[in-house]
Amino acid sequence: MKSNLLEHIHNPTDLRLLTESQLPQLAQELRDFIIGVVAVKEGHLGASLGVVELTVALHYVFNTPEDLLIWDVGHQAYGHKILTERRELFDTNRQLGGISGFPKRSESIYDAFGVGHSSTSISAALGMAIASNLKGEFDKQHIAVIGDASIASGMAFEGLNHAGVTDANLLVILNDNAIGIDPSVGALKNYLTAVKTGKNHRQNNMIKSLNFDYSGPIDGNDIFAVVNELKRLQKIKGPKFLHIITTKGKGLKQAEEDQVKYHAPGKFDALSGEILLKSEANLPPKYQDVFGLTILDLARINKKIIGITPAMPSGSSLKFMMEALPERAFDVGIAEQHAVTLAAGMATQGMIVYCNIYSTFLQRAYDQVIHDVAIQNLPVIFCLDRAGLVGEDGATHHGLFDVAYLRCIPNMVIYAPLNEIDLQNILYTVQLGIDFPIAIRYPRGRGVTPTWQKEFFGNYSKIEIGQSKCLKKGNKIAVLSNGTIGKNVIAALQALEQPDALAHYDFSFVKPLDEKALHEIFVTFEKIITIEDGTVIGGFGAAVLDFGSKHQYNVAIEKLGVPDQFIEQGTVDELQQICKIDVSSLKSLFLGLIK
Amino acid sequence: MKSNLLEHIHNPTDLRLLTESQLPQLAQELRDFIIGVVAVKEGHLGASLGVVELTVALHYVFNTPEDLLIWDVGHQAYGHKILTERRELFDTNRQLGGISGFPKRSESIYDAFGVGHSSTSISAALGMAIASNLKGEFDKQHIAVIGDASIASGMAFEGLNHAGVTDANLLVILNDNAIGIDPSVGALKNYLTAVKTGKNHRQNNMIKSLNFDYSGPIDGNDIFAVVNELKRLQKIKGPKFLHIITTKGKGLKQAEEDQVKYHAPGKFDALSGEILLKSEANLPPKYQDVFGLTILDLARINKKIIGITPAMPSGSSLKFMMEALPERAFDVGIAEQHAVTLAAGMATQGMIVYCNIYSTFLQRAYDQVIHDVAIQNLPVIFCLDRAGLVGEDGATHHGLFDVAYLRCIPNMVIYAPLNEIDLQNILYTVQLGIDFPIAIRYPRGRGVTPTWQKEFFGNYSKIEIGQSKCLKKGNKIAVLSNGTIGKNVIAALQALEQPDALAHYDFSFVKPLDEKALHEIFVTFEKIITIEDGTVIGGFGAAVLDFGSKHQYNVAIEKLGVPDQFIEQGTVDELQQICKIDVSSLKSLFLGLIK
Repeated sequence: MKSNLLEHIHNPTDLRLLTESQLPQLAQELRDFIIGVVAVKEGHLGASLGVVELTVALHYVFNTPEDLLIWDVGHQAYGHKILTERRELFDTNRQLGGISGFPKRSESIYDAFGVGHSSTSISAALGMAIASNLKGEFDKQHIAVIGDASIASGMAFEGLNHAGVTDANLLVILNDNAIGIDPSVGALKNYLTAVKTGKNHRQNNMIKSLNFDYSGPIDGNDIFAVVNELKRLQKIKGPKFLHIITTKGKGLKQAEEDQVKYHAPGKFDALSGEILLKSEANLPPKYQDVFGLTILDLARINKKIIGITPAMPSGSSLKFMMEALPERAFDVGIAEQHAVTLAAGMATQGMIVYCNIYSTFLQRAYDQVIHDVAIQNLPVIFCLDRAGLVGEDGATHHGLFDVAYLRCIPNMVIYAPLNEIDLQNILYTVQLGIDFPIAIRYPRGRGVTPTWQKEFFGNYSKIEIGQSKCLKKGNKIAVLSNGTIGKNVIAALQALEQPDALAHYDFSFVKPLDEKALHEIFVTFEKIITIEDGTVIGGFGAAVLDFGSKHQYNVAIEKLGVPDQFIEQGTVDELQQICKIDVSSLKSLFLGLIK
Repeated sequence: MKSNLLEHIHNPTDLRLLTESQLPQLAQELRDFIIGVVAVKEGHLGASLGVVELTVALHYVFNTPEDLLIWDVGHQAYGHKILTERRELFDTNRQLGGISGFPKRSESIYDAFGVGHSSTSISAALGMAIASNLKGEFDKQHIAVIGDASIASGMAFEGLNHAGVTDANLLVILNDNAIGIDPSVGALKNYLTAVKTGKNHRQNNMIKSLNFDYSGPIDGNDIFAVVNELKRLQKIKGPKFLHIITTKGKGLKQAEEDQVKYHAPGKFDALSGEILLKSEANLPPKYQDVFGLTILDLARINKKIIGITPAMPSGSSLKFMMEALPERAFDVGIAEQHAVTLAAGMATQGMIVYCNIYSTFLQRAYDQVIHDVAIQNLPVIFCLDRAGLVGEDGATHHGLFDVAYLRCIPNMVIYAPLNEIDLQNILYTVQLGIDFPIAIRYPRGRGVTPTWQKEFFGNYSKIEIGQSKCLKKGNKIAVLSNGTIGKNVIAALQALEQPDALAHYDFSFVKPLDEKALHEIFVTFEKIITIEDGTVIGGFGAAVLDFGSKHQYNVAIEKLGVPDQFIEQGTVDELQQICKIDVSSLKSLFLGLIK
């Protein structure tokens, strides 16, 4: 290996001093650097490896940060971060106080637009390009790099549809590797595959139909090909579209071969590529697996059950049902709007539809929840995965707003299980027959009962809609928790010596509230503390406050939860500390109150 | 004219007894019937006239309601309603207690899916079609009729993208009349125009690329052509796409010639077609015109100002700026998601972007508001038109949730002007420079000052962010209103003889709240009444309640607003009565309190 190029590159200005013949070496060093750090520090691997050549080429050819570069989603932007003044910070990736796992405007002038959710890049870049034209900056280029999974989302189509009738200096680069987090799906994917394999060459081009200057497909892992094509496109005004083919995980054998697993593999051996598996033998189950195993178990008996995921079969564990009962389990791609209305359509025909969407992504289908499900009072079951603080993915991915944005919708029932047993039981209960839509929110990560699968899985019991549970009696202060954050309350109470003053109630149902229990609580206790893993504005605590006000109870209410600010990345425990809803903060709070 | 056919047709079973040669007469009678009723009762005209032949043909050929028919948006479904057991109810269209202006499941078995917002039909019909296959109903057809403006929305693309890889018996009929409410825009529209004019016949077909069996374009106003083609398609399994060309307003000369005005023309002469204009001389201005005139006035001076509307140039009155300053005013089509992120992209480049979206349609871009604007704290100005109860359009169109769904988002400022003077002043204020996103919500309809344009327009004064106003002093009860509903409070107070006990405050800012004023109010008054034109769950009243609870004030708070139920169609005043926020209800409430 020749002398290390990467360590001399602080930013793209340095990069542009290299000769073209040095670029392959730099690409190799960049790839090795990413592998080296991610192997130890964890993070998203495959996407960034696939675009190493593209990343080098873009910063080599274009005049970043004057030319504006937007990475759709941002999973693939590690190389970009490393080449743009963050090489030495890269080992703080996704940590509290470190750099974000996604491009972020406040972090770097090279991050033209913050990302995290998919399919925003074309719209954002177009907005920038139109602004540049208005400012007379006619030579400026605006580049959106978007994957084949992301471009199939409706929002991307809206952006293309507008861009095609403008004279904006927009370059859309389709990074086509036939996979998002899971393999891409849909008719557009088939079309792209046909283009790649040459089967479609006589057909006219969908992108050209939208009035773009189309080029490609070219090998996106061939750095000279990419540099040459970018140089050509650099001189062309107006909307342009470059289709490149890359291999996700490129350069690490296992990552190329098992692209789903190596999307974010956790710790692995940088040399061999082998994932360093932790023993999961005595761990409680992931909530995702509780969902995935339970829906499959129920669906084997109840033929009306359908499962839907927008592009998260692995993440949601709907994959179990997709493998066993493929005719009733659907991955619709990154298409949350479609997923919800599809579910509504199925529900009109008597199907029992579990629509599994991450809490943060249901924001994409808010109108469909209101307009297509709730107004018609269709019994769609929303399984909101990754509700609450999600940890290292940070502000774009926390699922903090769902209770607030769903609670104001008439007809909606909102439930957050205390643990994995309640999760399986509510999943069981709803398929017995409901006449309302329901949102079931549960967090990323593991439950509390290592023996769940052996001892509890399949032993279903029906949950009474709207009913709360007293978990611990007390005489002075009532703590009302919603969802799995209740385990922090349990732990904090267990850590106290004489917590007699404190009662603990599990209010799994935010809506409808258990009004009977609340009346008792309001007349019994002198203070009520509510706690939730979500925004306190408009959330569970606000519902309790509403109840107290409506019935003119004069009991002090303290609402714990996520305050009115965006919470960045960190471990879940670190972030709970920031919000003062971790075990230690709760213990201190309780101690102060019962002194 | 031969004997009347329409009056003998109660439902499609009767229709199917006709011979094909009778269908043109029936179409003519149906067209006349629609014109006759809408001329007097008002409603959406042009869209239904354009699909008279299609409507007759669909119910003639297909076995509705067994075959499932979904009208996208539903503006065009009047003929459908008349042919499906609602001819005699049709003069109650859009009235309180009458039939809905849109298809609605609870109204008729022939309304397979409730609509109102655009672009949902493909997803819903696909869901039904998949369900039918699972139930073994392999001969059932599922038909989505969607316009060329609606199919350009991202959600429709998501539905097509999924449908193309299924074997669902889905028939998508593109009703291409080159116009939504305003003329269609975008690259897809240009593509469709090229197809229609034959310029694109050598090109391959975008829809075929998505794996649909494509046919057309055919003349959708030629009933025999449509019947024949539907009969052919009826026998074909799997996803099918029929492109028909129709004329919006077909059969009424003026409606064909001025399609924008005759979309919903108000009362008109059924014979001559002339619109019966009411004198607007002494009326206060529409809030829409206050927005439209003000943004144009400001944009002439401030070159950074940009206006965006997703497909509502006429409805929002952005058309004034689009005509005068077309390079800075954009109609992006039915693409709310794109509109918001486009605005965010522009804002990163220093532009001052007014993104005007109806409150109910901002639900379509909720994630973009959070993820692309608020997290990055970009100073995008959301102008939420038609906030609050909108009247005759009913449950799908009221703008009732915006305060609740926006208030939980960090960084957002939320403002609702009391009147048109405050609206112009806040529009003026924000372009002086803000470092946060703001939502400005205002209702459908007119303000309160007939002389606004002559006396106030252009006399701008700056509004202090977060400041409330005392409109009337009092000593016992404080009424806190947010937005234009305050005029009901003013009127109710004026109707009382001695309202000394009642104070009235205008809290235009829901966020940030005027905490200084609130502290004074909470220590001064024994009761607080909040009132808002939106859901009480999570809204303005909830914010006041939060404040009182946080500071442990012991003052009774009564929250007035829209209760936790979907509100159907009616006049705004009738709907306010249902919600007890009309002048008369307020007067009674106040009287009872000060007795």
